[in-house]
Amino acid sequence: MTQRIVKSLPDQEKSLIARIRGRARRGTGLVVGIGDDCAILRVPAGHELLITTDLTLEKVHFRRDWHPPQVVGWRCLTRGLSDIAAMGGTPRAALLSLALDRRVPQSWVNQFLTGLLDAAEQFRIPLAGGDTAQSAGGIQADIVVVGSAPTGKAIRRSGARPGDGIYITGALGGAAAALGQLKKTIVRWKDYERHFHPEARIQVGQWLGRRGLASAMIDTSDGLSTDLEHVCEESGVGAMVESAAIPRAKVGRPANQVSLELAMHGGEDYELLFTSSGQVPSTIAGVPVTRIGQMTKKRGMVLIDATGISGKLVPKGWQHFVA
Amino acid sequence: MTQRIVKSLPDQEKSLIARIRGRARRGTGLVVGIGDDCAILRVPAGHELLITTDLTLEKVHFRRDWHPPQVVGWRCLTRGLSDIAAMGGTPRAALLSLALDRRVPQSWVNQFLTGLLDAAEQFRIPLAGGDTAQSAGGIQADIVVVGSAPTGKAIRRSGARPGDGIYITGALGGAAAALGQLKKTIVRWKDYERHFHPEARIQVGQWLGRRGLASAMIDTSDGLSTDLEHVCEESGVGAMVESAAIPRAKVGRPANQVSLELAMHGGEDYELLFTSSGQVPSTIAGVPVTRIGQMTKKRGMVLIDATGISGKLVPKGWQHFVA
Repeated sequence: MTQRIVKSLPDQEKSLIARIRGRARRGTGLVVGIGDDCAILRVPAGHELLITTDLTLEKVHFRRDWHPPQVVGWRCLTRGLSDIAAMGGTPRAALLSLALDRRVPQSWVNQFLTGLLDAAEQFRIPLAGGDTAQSAGGIQADIVVVGSAPTGKAIRRSGARPGDGIYITGALGGAAAALGQLKKTIVRWKDYERHFHPEARIQVGQWLGRRGLASAMIDTSDGLSTDLEHVCEESGVGAMVESAAIPRAKVGRPANQVSLELAMHGGEDYELLFTSSGQVPSTIAGVPVTRIGQMTKKRGMVLIDATGISGKLVPKGWQHFVA
Repeated sequence: MTQRIVKSLPDQEKSLIARIRGRARRGTGLVVGIGDDCAILRVPAGHELLITTDLTLEKVHFRRDWHPPQVVGWRCLTRGLSDIAAMGGTPRAALLSLALDRRVPQSWVNQFLTGLLDAAEQFRIPLAGGDTAQSAGGIQADIVVVGSAPTGKAIRRSGARPGDGIYITGALGGAAAALGQLKKTIVRWKDYERHFHPEARIQVGQWLGRRGLASAMIDTSDGLSTDLEHVCEESGVGAMVESAAIPRAKVGRPANQVSLELAMHGGEDYELLFTSSGQVPSTIAGVPVTRIGQMTKKRGMVLIDATGISGKLVPKGWQHFVA
């Protein structure tokens, strides 16, 4: 009789909706939030709409024994926010689709939502809607983030030109280093902040967008080598990177600099990788910015090592474990 | 090293993206589609944005042995389109998040996409982006549909007033009847069209929106009784329904009218349920429209049976199997 083949979760769903409504911040532009067929939003006049979706799957993107529920919720929304940051945009609202099996305790869901809504509050966006369902096993979330940028001003991947400098915010490899440690032992959040509590670089993106200073931009979700390749492909150019210039994260206890390998190919740091032909300051919105190379007319990516010898830079971010 | 805990699907992903790009229709307003951090869309001046997300999960919303992949893809997008229809809106673009385990054959994915893109073409919207990942088991999809409506004109669930007539498009119970049959035997698509090939009532919704004729609207995804309750709750009113007036689908071979029970509580017909104080024609955009009752000041829902005796109408759409 029901259209769903297995039982759904009316009580859990009602509780979820009540919690979201209870904490929902009516951000500017939200006309109708949860409780209708669609959310209704107003986009500022003269702005284009930005939309991104990101899956967060148990056993794929997180493990319940490694990641506390607040961390999973925070990171779930951060993945979408980071995509908005990478366009130089302003986030406007989020929608969450969440599938849970019946054995997921309500306390897990509550803490997951707490983490997600903490991030929503920090960036002043409402959780405007979504969907809930019973899963066939485990936890699956999909976050949608809607943002906007002045028409024609969103920073794409395709605008890099030969001679443009290549820049990266913050430091790389910290998130991947945490995953490596988690496989071996218990780790403390604060020793691996960028893994457990990454912050989308919204302000840096907006700063660059306002000044038209970045010719291309992407966030480092897949790892520097793979994300830089995306920029090269979409822009139709090549890149030359100096390995000694790549800022490597200091993580752990005592804090150690991660390996070059991790900094080049480890993902989920959610830093911004951008190209520019202009004068780029060494700090933007309080975040360090480092020049790591420049775009080239010749296609392909080249890595220059500390001794000045150049070799091929192979993208092996998120494909790394593939046989 | 990779940020994903298990292997991802670079080859399958690349093939998927190539297929979507190959068939992508550059709908009005799509500035950037797949291949950047976000999709960029333009919303017509004077319009508000509508956004909806809907999960489609294997073993929950479909079974691979019951539902051909094209059907799963078509229904996946239809769920989102139907939400846009229920606001009287115009669909503008869709985004798809798709998680697959490694054993899902490429042919399944291709046919799923064919079904989804068929629906996108029919309603002239581009598939503008999304996400792909390896699942921990089975297939999980989440569809995002973005639409728009003139500012202030989207039809919400909350506008029904006492005395408004209650109307339903098409006929009810056909989709639920198919599920009942599938549990027993193999069925033919064409005998259960509304289950295998439902069509979002976009044109009916737009017709009502343009004329301001509907005071409240919802699509019957959860079943008439549950969806009508949503309208009652959001509008703060009650409803009185005449059981004899409920249009019951004719399905199967030979075609038989479904039971009143199925028509009242079966979901996924994706018809439009709306209320109006005006003159509503018996056909809108080629779709039959039936008056089934009226909204009441007194809260709660009442069902008047064929003999004129009234009883409580209990919402038991998608909660039906819950103990």
